[in-house]
Amino acid sequence: MIAQNLIHDYQMKWMRIQKVMQEKGADGCLLTNGINLFYTTGHIYSGYFYLPAEGEPWYFVKRPNGLVGEHVVYLRKPEQLPDLFRENGLSMPQHLLLEADELTYSDYTRLQSIFQPQTTGNATALLRQIRRVKTPWEIEQTRLCARRHEAVYQEIPSCFRPGMTDLEFQYEIELRMRKHGSLGLFRAFGPNMDIYMGSILAGPNAETPSPFDFALGGGGMDASCPLGANGTPLEEGMAIMVDMAGNYTPYMTDMTRVYSVGKLSDEAYRAHEVSRRIHQETEAAARPGVACADLYQLALHIVEEEGLASYFMGTKQQAKFVGHGVGLQINELPVLTPRSKEILEENMIFALEPKFVLPGIGAVGVENTYLVTAQGCEKLTHAPEEIINLI
Amino acid sequence: MIAQNLIHDYQMKWMRIQKVMQEKGADGCLLTNGINLFYTTGHIYSGYFYLPAEGEPWYFVKRPNGLVGEHVVYLRKPEQLPDLFRENGLSMPQHLLLEADELTYSDYTRLQSIFQPQTTGNATALLRQIRRVKTPWEIEQTRLCARRHEAVYQEIPSCFRPGMTDLEFQYEIELRMRKHGSLGLFRAFGPNMDIYMGSILAGPNAETPSPFDFALGGGGMDASCPLGANGTPLEEGMAIMVDMAGNYTPYMTDMTRVYSVGKLSDEAYRAHEVSRRIHQETEAAARPGVACADLYQLALHIVEEEGLASYFMGTKQQAKFVGHGVGLQINELPVLTPRSKEILEENMIFALEPKFVLPGIGAVGVENTYLVTAQGCEKLTHAPEEIINLI
Repeated sequence: MIAQNLIHDYQMKWMRIQKVMQEKGADGCLLTNGINLFYTTGHIYSGYFYLPAEGEPWYFVKRPNGLVGEHVVYLRKPEQLPDLFRENGLSMPQHLLLEADELTYSDYTRLQSIFQPQTTGNATALLRQIRRVKTPWEIEQTRLCARRHEAVYQEIPSCFRPGMTDLEFQYEIELRMRKHGSLGLFRAFGPNMDIYMGSILAGPNAETPSPFDFALGGGGMDASCPLGANGTPLEEGMAIMVDMAGNYTPYMTDMTRVYSVGKLSDEAYRAHEVSRRIHQETEAAARPGVACADLYQLALHIVEEEGLASYFMGTKQQAKFVGHGVGLQINELPVLTPRSKEILEENMIFALEPKFVLPGIGAVGVENTYLVTAQGCEKLTHAPEEIINLI
Repeated sequence: MIAQNLIHDYQMKWMRIQKVMQEKGADGCLLTNGINLFYTTGHIYSGYFYLPAEGEPWYFVKRPNGLVGEHVVYLRKPEQLPDLFRENGLSMPQHLLLEADELTYSDYTRLQSIFQPQTTGNATALLRQIRRVKTPWEIEQTRLCARRHEAVYQEIPSCFRPGMTDLEFQYEIELRMRKHGSLGLFRAFGPNMDIYMGSILAGPNAETPSPFDFALGGGGMDASCPLGANGTPLEEGMAIMVDMAGNYTPYMTDMTRVYSVGKLSDEAYRAHEVSRRIHQETEAAARPGVACADLYQLALHIVEEEGLASYFMGTKQQAKFVGHGVGLQINELPVLTPRSKEILEENMIFALEPKFVLPGIGAVGVENTYLVTAQGCEKLTHAPEEIINLI
């Protein structure tokens, strides 16, 4: 099942998962969520991945047909798993981890009654913890994604025509994203993250609160998709925040830049420079061992010092975070929030997005994706950070 | 909360849900899935919708702020619900329906421990059953969606340039979809339905089996998105099946048409006409009271009579259905499968998609969306059904 050139990368992941299972006294984890399957096998299939706390992993596949390899076993339904475990000499786990934050209640309880373990624990929490620290291949894929993300952002000014709406501007950017290899799918963790290819916020729409767990809102095109661009005509004096997906490889980057139609107010440029200062100071401070909550406080301190707290991360509704992990999903761990207990580790990848919403003008601020290195922190997303005037 | 011009439409939905709850002895249902909230309230919000078996519905909202109306109550976390029920004179449900096939195990058990009902039942199953039969507004939205879907399909031949790949062709179609108002999001029920704006299958890629629950597969762009177009150059003699999303209103339509690069084999045209014959006979047979399993058998009978069974709904992996309900999600009920126990009712909307995969050539066949009327069945998606030659 595993590509030969990447076998060490997958073995590294399995060993990390096994180490935590052994510490927690779990006998094994059974994964079925597509993202977790891709993380642990390099494939998305319908079926299950079983990793015992010690020993080799097993692949139980419903679809597609034709997958081959050691420990690949086909099945029609999960009720066959106990027999297949027995036939293959696998012991039945008494302490089993299942994806409690990803499986539906029906699917979870079905697996519980099939395995009848003494206890079940949360494989989602475990995988999200492990997935924070990226492997060499994951970092390479993120770098490749960043290069394509940057290439698209370079073309953004050419997407603008006077008189267009935010949506028309977005359609042109989406086309360029696809031509540069955007996979289209924009994956997020949790039920409260409906988004399509990213978000563009122009003028007053940046203030509109959204139901979702994103940094900012926007009214969206329809009540059924209440996020992002809403048909606002792009008019002189407006800031246009472009936060379109970096989904060019399975491992995403997150990058925001701001464009303007003509000149903005002095306050808008000042707030934008405050965002850049937060980036510079965070980049200087972030290294293994630094607490994520401290990075949030660092940002908040600058914001308060500059008297911009009432515009920080929204106005009518303010998000209480300034950054988040990025990987196969756009909202991975760690989170840079006031209450985060997470500590930066080498090879974590996170996005920092200090943003300000200025009533009547729009949103300003920069977002970049960073890699935590042995001694510090490396910016992965390079593109000019000034507000670019489109006319 | 409810738009005044649509209040009767929502009341109709609530009454249907309440009728089933009363029959089943449920005291109320608590919904939180975005699609179910939109269905019952016209809004997507972070929070809960509570409908008691008798009486008026209640809206418990976390985000966005600013929603107003009768029975709108703000909360921070679900643990506040018992107090909020008490303060508002709502009795605590002893037999509570929760979204067992949509809520994660963690979220479901959290609500269980908050409400501590004697029993919980499956609100997902109830809502999927109710959502099968569309209201007047839902039908109107579906018709509007179909008009835009048709307008885009008319432009498909103009998207083709000799020498392009299936992906390049798809990007051009996506741009036209967006310009005609596609909402972008393509919503499906269940965890096993990852798709981006639809599927284009050209030539040999149509045979590639997919892990997902769609009619056909395709290799996709990347192992992390294994469905649909895979970069196949569009060459003479290939069939190109276009099954792009009809997501122009919240209520979707599903339509497939086939294009060719030059002339195809006689067998391809014959199989395509067999698909059209299945449509004609199904359209003549479908009416309230007809069993969905019988419609599957009708299709299968024609396929076998024509000797095309080994190409029907795939080759290496064959899907055992020929149609499905459509609405807020692309895979609603009823399903047209051999084992379906569902009976057509007036105002159900379903897509019929008898497709054939011809090795080396590609996929052929037509898909349309139909409305079940009082006496029969009305085709909603009108576009020329012949294979259209692009050169």
